[in-house]
Amino acid sequence: MATIGFIGLGNMGAHMARNLIKAGHDLKVFDLNEQTVQYVAQAGAKAADSAADAATEVEFVVTMLPVGANVRSVLQDAGVIDAVAPGTVLIDSSTIDVDTARAMHEVVAEAGYEFLDAPVSGGVGGAEAGTLTFMCGGDQKVFAKCRPILEGMGKNIVRCGGPGQGQVTKICNNMIAGITALACSEAFVLGETLGVDRKVLFDVISTSTGNSTILNLMCPVSGVTDNVPANNGYKPGFAAGLMLKDLRLAQAAALTAGTSTPLGAAAAAAFAIHDANGNSHLDTSSIIKVIKPDIE
Amino acid sequence: MATIGFIGLGNMGAHMARNLIKAGHDLKVFDLNEQTVQYVAQAGAKAADSAADAATEVEFVVTMLPVGANVRSVLQDAGVIDAVAPGTVLIDSSTIDVDTARAMHEVVAEAGYEFLDAPVSGGVGGAEAGTLTFMCGGDQKVFAKCRPILEGMGKNIVRCGGPGQGQVTKICNNMIAGITALACSEAFVLGETLGVDRKVLFDVISTSTGNSTILNLMCPVSGVTDNVPANNGYKPGFAAGLMLKDLRLAQAAALTAGTSTPLGAAAAAAFAIHDANGNSHLDTSSIIKVIKPDIE
Amino acid sequence: MATIGFIGLGNMGAHMARNLIKAGHDLKVFDLNEQTVQYVAQAGAKAADSAADAATEVEFVVTMLPVGANVRSVLQDAGVIDAVAPGTVLIDSSTIDVDTARAMHEVVAEAGYEFLDAPVSGGVGGAEAGTLTFMCGGDQKVFAKCRPILEGMGKNIVRCGGPGQGQVTKICNNMIAGITALACSEAFVLGETLGVDRKVLFDVISTSTGNSTILNLMCPVSGVTDNVPANNGYKPGFAAGLMLKDLRLAQAAALTAGTSTPLGAAAAAAFAIHDANGNSHLDTSSIIKVIKPDIE
Amino acid sequence: MATIGFIGLGNMGAHMARNLIKAGHDLKVFDLNEQTVQYVAQAGAKAADSAADAATEVEFVVTMLPVGANVRSVLQDAGVIDAVAPGTVLIDSSTIDVDTARAMHEVVAEAGYEFLDAPVSGGVGGAEAGTLTFMCGGDQKVFAKCRPILEGMGKNIVRCGGPGQGQVTKICNNMIAGITALACSEAFVLGETLGVDRKVLFDVISTSTGNSTILNLMCPVSGVTDNVPANNGYKPGFAAGLMLKDLRLAQAAALTAGTSTPLGAAAAAAFAIHDANGNSHLDTSSIIKVIKPDIE
Repeated sequence: MATIGFIGLGNMGAHMARNLIKAGHDLKVFDLNEQTVQYVAQAGAKAADSAADAATEVEFVVTMLPVGANVRSVLQDAGVIDAVAPGTVLIDSSTIDVDTARAMHEVVAEAGYEFLDAPVSGGVGGAEAGTLTFMCGGDQKVFAKCRPILEGMGKNIVRCGGPGQGQVTKICNNMIAGITALACSEAFVLGETLGVDRKVLFDVISTSTGNSTILNLMCPVSGVTDNVPANNGYKPGFAAGLMLKDLRLAQAAALTAGTSTPLGAAAAAAFAIHDANGNSHLDTSSIIKVIKPDIE
Repeated sequence: MATIGFIGLGNMGAHMARNLIKAGHDLKVFDLNEQTVQYVAQAGAKAADSAADAATEVEFVVTMLPVGANVRSVLQDAGVIDAVAPGTVLIDSSTIDVDTARAMHEVVAEAGYEFLDAPVSGGVGGAEAGTLTFMCGGDQKVFAKCRPILEGMGKNIVRCGGPGQGQVTKICNNMIAGITALACSEAFVLGETLGVDRKVLFDVISTSTGNSTILNLMCPVSGVTDNVPANNGYKPGFAAGLMLKDLRLAQAAALTAGTSTPLGAAAAAAFAIHDANGNSHLDTSSIIKVIKPDIE
Repeated sequence: MATIGFIGLGNMGAHMARNLIKAGHDLKVFDLNEQTVQYVAQAGAKAADSAADAATEVEFVVTMLPVGANVRSVLQDAGVIDAVAPGTVLIDSSTIDVDTARAMHEVVAEAGYEFLDAPVSGGVGGAEAGTLTFMCGGDQKVFAKCRPILEGMGKNIVRCGGPGQGQVTKICNNMIAGITALACSEAFVLGETLGVDRKVLFDVISTSTGNSTILNLMCPVSGVTDNVPANNGYKPGFAAGLMLKDLRLAQAAALTAGTSTPLGAAAAAAFAIHDANGNSHLDTSSIIKVIKPDIE
Repeated sequence: MATIGFIGLGNMGAHMARNLIKAGHDLKVFDLNEQTVQYVAQAGAKAADSAADAATEVEFVVTMLPVGANVRSVLQDAGVIDAVAPGTVLIDSSTIDVDTARAMHEVVAEAGYEFLDAPVSGGVGGAEAGTLTFMCGGDQKVFAKCRPILEGMGKNIVRCGGPGQGQVTKICNNMIAGITALACSEAFVLGETLGVDRKVLFDVISTSTGNSTILNLMCPVSGVTDNVPANNGYKPGFAAGLMLKDLRLAQAAALTAGTSTPLGAAAAAAFAIHDANGNSHLDTSSIIKVIKPDIE
């Protein structure tokens, strides 16, 4: 079992930290929100005074933060890199932009430590159940060291490639997912407006070339299949605001790559309009409201 | 068994007509191309002299033609409606615009006959194997009459709703499929350009929220999964030019419906650019060449 | 001076008919709305009992109707073509789809009469002031006959080409205008969000390569230039709903032409979202609210 | 008159430096390309050995470099900031991303110096003629100091706001310009395909609501107006590759701002496709070839 500093105890991070404790690791945890620190401390973690404190005298540091600037700030400005002991491995499970992920690999390496970018999919449910997928970028050797730790929080631990490539893989996947959610929305509004019953649309499309995981998990109209957010007022699930974040990360990655993403860009614009209309708290499948605001 | 006039013996129609013969029906067939008429006649059909001749003294007329204007022309100008006997049922299996499909329902009904729009999916392979899916629009009673005929050519016979709604359902499905093909293309180019191995991308996405039937049947890059056109120089499969046709039918339907399809429109534009670059003969998955022309 | 049947006395048509009367022509007018018929009759027109009645024993028939289906219905179903005397010339000033315009040319020609498509630009203000621009499609000879009539309603009378090409030219122009309105909106929101004063943005762009007639007539933000709808709560001007109609006509034309319009399609989708949000009554420049709903 | 270090003597920079010499300033110049250094030295500049050397003992440093990373590298890694004397003002006339521009303001300020972002428009022609427009971001006081220097290279010197806002303003303008170029292209292909003469299209649109500076300077079809690149095989002018760069800077800025740009994104995708097809060396108006590759 290992000693682990865990920084960032939000909706996802708190569950992940608790699962690491359950798996038998010794945790020191930090978050700006003291309440969530107490919540995880009650499960057996030591409450640290600061990010740097959490990173002191541990074998691994796990960060789980909202955006790239937070990761940079915690590692550099908040002194985590200065605080860690020789041999510490830093794992960033935040979903952040590829450029910052690459830069963090460089910064940590220059300081003499090892780094793995390891964003997750699976949502709050997966974080709580310990069934997350980790998409990892970094050296094979570092990945091998981190795998036992990640297995305490997830089920599917994949090395996608070198520095930053965990992030790249995740946003490629999520870009497709976001596009698919909007594509299904367009089709259901079109078909239903022209008189086809939504149940017929679902039955035909879900058994034909239009089928997808998103259609099954996030069918954008209510009443045609079980267990989708549309049946429950679009309560997430995976919030539209998080999908917007990922679609924008994909756009940033495309700028870095110099490649074009006509649909990724159009989907990002649609989710931004959805956000401007005050709907980011709803499930991703609520993007259908951009096409037809009063649909249910 | 029934007597059937079959008009339109192209890549799809010739196989469909032969399957009807195999199923024991009596066929009279017509096409402007005499060679294909002979090909089907050798299987046991009677070669008709004209579309009207094929439609004379039969219980069913099946049309399988490229575009809506052809259907209108055959039924009205070429005299099919004038030629049919009382009680004849007209089945149009062409994939055509919703407006024309609706108009044909009206025209045929005014003339005192019954009509079913019944476009297919499954491609030339499905036509030959008799495993097509038929998406049908028309009265329940008419659908029931036509079902035994359609079962001679396909496996999955679905009534989608009233007049035109077979066409609507098909283009809704195919619009999603076309969007998904381009979405996957964008993601593979983006991920690979940023250094992720295409096999890793496929493995992660195909087991995550980005998965779809299209990804599995039409993965846009070669060498990562079996039996996809990308492994074979993008030999179709389902030609990009046909997908462009369907995406444009979806745009026409959206104009009729007055609904918006931001991604459907963007995908139609991309396939049009692909067509302008001379690539419509390649498989739909070759749309990746719009993003990266020299990819393999 | 000529005898003219005028059918369709809406916001535009009533002014146009009154201007023809002022120019000295004898008018018979018809509209389904009796009130507007009386309004024009008070200016000196004879009130007709029906569209066919208005078209009887006149040298010219002018139609000014909302959509293509209305024009087809008035000319064919309502009996205008059957009612007109030999030598009558039919002028359609409605803005309609290219396909219907072409079809009406054929229908009228087959009946032995002459037809000119002659959509206008200039809005209600131009209709009232008699300063409309007419974009005409039809034979040179027919155009020459119609010119004196059109000069009674407008200032700039242009022959754009053969049948339907007045409509084509108008929607090409208006598609650019609609795109430009959204482009300006995107730029103002982007610039202002990043801290640049809107007046600076206007001053620089209006004197640089981003300048356009739309920027000057329809600057999407208030307070930077005079006499734009944004200064007046986006009161039209040219309503966003009319721009949506024209953008959709452009999409229909692109389907007929088989050409691609990536920006035209994206603009149509944005105006459709704007419409779905209940904003079609506002000026076209209010499209900025799709990007930032609470902007003023 | 002032002493000025000038770093970056490319197509634009060499002309700008020579104009500063003509205006009576003392120049020290540096570029990695020795040939261009000699070219400017012949006009009276002193050839510096390095960027840092050029920045030593001068009152102003002007940088004119391709991308943001170059500016950062020259100012920080190449030691320009370490080399400058107290009171030196740094002017960056490169067109770069807003984030880097803002960061350079901070970096220079922390080092105790003053900074102005001052990207230009007007192209190589304007650089040679000394008629550039400078869009400046920075303190009013710094702007006032720099104005006499900028007047040696341009005619229109505008302060757009604080740090980075020169860059913001430029990319807002250029985003509109790039969108307009594609919008005109879509309209000309659409109109001409439907049979309208291109000269008619130009004459109507250029006198109506579709008119713009871009239409007049960069009409995308040949033979309808004088002095446009389309008349000369799309020889730039303003290369499509530079427009792609600016459209991508606009996309990066939109990500920073968190605003949406549906048309800006679609235009960036179209120029990226144009680039992938090998056309970035042609004028921006050649973007029409994305719609119709063989147009002239």
